[in-house]
Amino acid sequence: MDNRKIGVFDSGLGGLTAVKEIMSLFPDESIVYFGDTGRVPYGTRSKETILKYTYDDINFLLSCDVKMIVIACGTASSAALPEIKTEFNVPIYGVVDSGAYEAARVTKNNKIGIIGTTATIKSGAYNKYLAEYNNKVQTFEKACPLFVPLVENGHFDTPVTKLVVEEYLKDIKDAGVDTLILGCTHYPLLKSAISKYMGDDVTLVSPGEEVAKFLRKKITPLNAHSEIRDRDQYSYYVSDSIENFEELGGIFLETKINGKVNKIDIEKY
Amino acid sequence: MDNRKIGVFDSGLGGLTAVKEIMSLFPDESIVYFGDTGRVPYGTRSKETILKYTYDDINFLLSCDVKMIVIACGTASSAALPEIKTEFNVPIYGVVDSGAYEAARVTKNNKIGIIGTTATIKSGAYNKYLAEYNNKVQTFEKACPLFVPLVENGHFDTPVTKLVVEEYLKDIKDAGVDTLILGCTHYPLLKSAISKYMGDDVTLVSPGEEVAKFLRKKITPLNAHSEIRDRDQYSYYVSDSIENFEELGGIFLETKINGKVNKIDIEKY
Repeated sequence: MDNRKIGVFDSGLGGLTAVKEIMSLFPDESIVYFGDTGRVPYGTRSKETILKYTYDDINFLLSCDVKMIVIACGTASSAALPEIKTEFNVPIYGVVDSGAYEAARVTKNNKIGIIGTTATIKSGAYNKYLAEYNNKVQTFEKACPLFVPLVENGHFDTPVTKLVVEEYLKDIKDAGVDTLILGCTHYPLLKSAISKYMGDDVTLVSPGEEVAKFLRKKITPLNAHSEIRDRDQYSYYVSDSIENFEELGGIFLETKINGKVNKIDIEKY
Repeated sequence: MDNRKIGVFDSGLGGLTAVKEIMSLFPDESIVYFGDTGRVPYGTRSKETILKYTYDDINFLLSCDVKMIVIACGTASSAALPEIKTEFNVPIYGVVDSGAYEAARVTKNNKIGIIGTTATIKSGAYNKYLAEYNNKVQTFEKACPLFVPLVENGHFDTPVTKLVVEEYLKDIKDAGVDTLILGCTHYPLLKSAISKYMGDDVTLVSPGEEVAKFLRKKITPLNAHSEIRDRDQYSYYVSDSIENFEELGGIFLETKINGKVNKIDIEKY
């Protein structure tokens, strides 16, 4: 038994998708979430800066006495996690591992598409994890840097989004993949537009949703279950305005989080 | 005579437009530029965070012994400058003032459109400055949050850009403006697409290009001319990767800046 919290972080809001799944699969666990809204996005930055920000985020969560950390950010999971994984005293899981695991499990023709931020695609991290789970897999990758701003501006399924989806996904579609990894926590919000273009036969994998199932395999061996369940079970921290996060976060989680969000100076960690 | 440098900062690269004009109008001045590439963009953040980042940027430039500061970032100029202007011992000029001055000068029908980041439009700063220069002006504003990512991903004049331009500028066009302020240093790169949609009769004002002319009016009264001209006349600092900045910055300035760019930890200022 370990009553300490599970720490989750993302560059912004998107990681709340993972939080929602963890809440649902592990109702007895306490969760502390950090969204680095003052420095989002990570996906366009250099590896060096992504590493620095990832260290800050992990150090903040460690200061909250967590028993494990989930990196819900596709960019930090792929560009930073492989390098820093063993430097801390708590286990750290990323969405890349869980997304690769699920994609390798569901593909039938072993052709998998991977989309993500520029930094995620550049890291090649999905390929490495996929090769561990299924060495017959052939991958087709594409960085989709306009997807995050489209989501953040409410362009979920508009004519603009349709044009951008076509531009980015044409080669992957033509390659005949039967599985597509949405390797950034923002992308599931474009599922409808992506699915219309790729067709019903292509399975879309959202790593943020898979990470909770993945944790279930990990938490039992760690004997890290918790049995605390109270009003203060969930807490949220951000590095920019609380108001924006409360409003949009509530939509992501489908529950009000007003009054539970605090602002921190992440540059101090 | 004052041989100290002119300090210029922007959230990223766009402020180099202003630097280029200052170099051309003031060939004897030394310039130090800071681009906050590790925390770009500013335009989507809260006013509180924009204020904090602006203080950091100004403090860094002051540490370089500058005689004046130009805020080449539309967001920091509009959301932060009016509040902090008098807190420092050197004069600070923003692109908003120079852009408003030029727009008020060129309009014939006194109908001016203003586009910028969400934070810039929210601040209402252009309206305040415009009213100072021409109290008959009627303004029509629109935040265009997708323009920055479009520019950063090379979508200068593509079908996607055309659709987004139509979406954002329709109301301003219908209002019959004869002048449009491109209130963000990225937007001049969309000039061709914007001009095609707005028509040849609408004058596009780029505040980054106007700020140098504006300084000419200010520098003489300040008696702040410099007569230093040497190899090290220009220096550049960034908060993310040097390589990216050297490459893109060279394109902005139309001259190589390799070897002249340094990385700093802006969070220490």
